[in-house]
Amino acid sequence: MAQRKRYLFVCVNRRPDGTPKGSCAARGSVELHARLKELVKARGLAGTAVRACTSSCLDTCWAGPTIAVEPDGYFYGRVKEADLDEILDAFATDRRVERLVLSPEDFILPKELAEK
Amino acid sequence: MAQRKRYLFVCVNRRPDGTPKGSCAARGSVELHARLKELVKARGLAGTAVRACTSSCLDTCWAGPTIAVEPDGYFYGRVKEADLDEILDAFATDRRVERLVLSPEDFILPKELAEK
Repeated sequence: MAQRKRYLFVCVNRRPDGTPKGSCAARGSVELHARLKELVKARGLAGTAVRACTSSCLDTCWAGPTIAVEPDGYFYGRVKEADLDEILDAFATDRRVERLVLSPEDFILPKELAEK
Repeated sequence: MAQRKRYLFVCVNRRPDGTPKGSCAARGSVELHARLKELVKARGLAGTAVRACTSSCLDTCWAGPTIAVEPDGYFYGRVKEADLDEILDAFATDRRVERLVLSPEDFILPKELAEK
C-alpha cells in the first residue's frame, strides 16, 4: 500500500445519554463509518485514494456526525449515510459537497447546549 | 473553540499479541497520545493550534507508533514520548522533525512481516 490521497476521520466519540451537546456516536457515526468503509472498498478506492478511519472527539459534537477530510483540511458535519455517495463522487474531481462543509460558526458550541 | 490549525491523529489500533506486523497500541501509542494531550494543554495550544486525537489503524503498523499530522499531510512514525517536545516545538515555526517523517517506503509492509 501507499500513503492514500485522502484520509477521512469519522468521529466515533460517544457521550453519556442526556449530555446536552450530544455526540457523533449517538448520532449514528459508528454505522456511518462502517458504511463509508464498505463504499470506499466497493469503489476500489481503498488502497490508493481514500482511507476511512475513525477518530476520537473532533470537538464539533453538536454538528455531528463529523468527518475530518484530510489533508484537504475541512470538516463535513451532520453527515447521513445517504450523503456518502455524493461525498465520494466529489473526491473524484476534487470538489466538496458544500452544503455539508462546516463553517467557522459550526465550530462554536451553541450557548443553549453548554453544560450548566 | 475554533477549527484548530493542526489535528494530530495518533493511531491507537491494537492487534492481537504475536501479530507479525505489531500495532501502534502494542508499541505504546495509547500512553503516547495521553502525554501528547497533556503537553498540548500545558503549552496553551489546545484551543487554537493543535488538537491531539486518536484514530483507528493508519496502515503503517510496522512503523508505529504513527501520528498523522493534518492538514499538513505527513505522518510521523516510530514516535517516542521523548520526541513529543521536539514535534511541538517544530510546529511553532511550521517545520517538521524530518528524522521521524515516514517515507514512501515506510508505507509498504515489509515482506518478512506479511501474514503467512
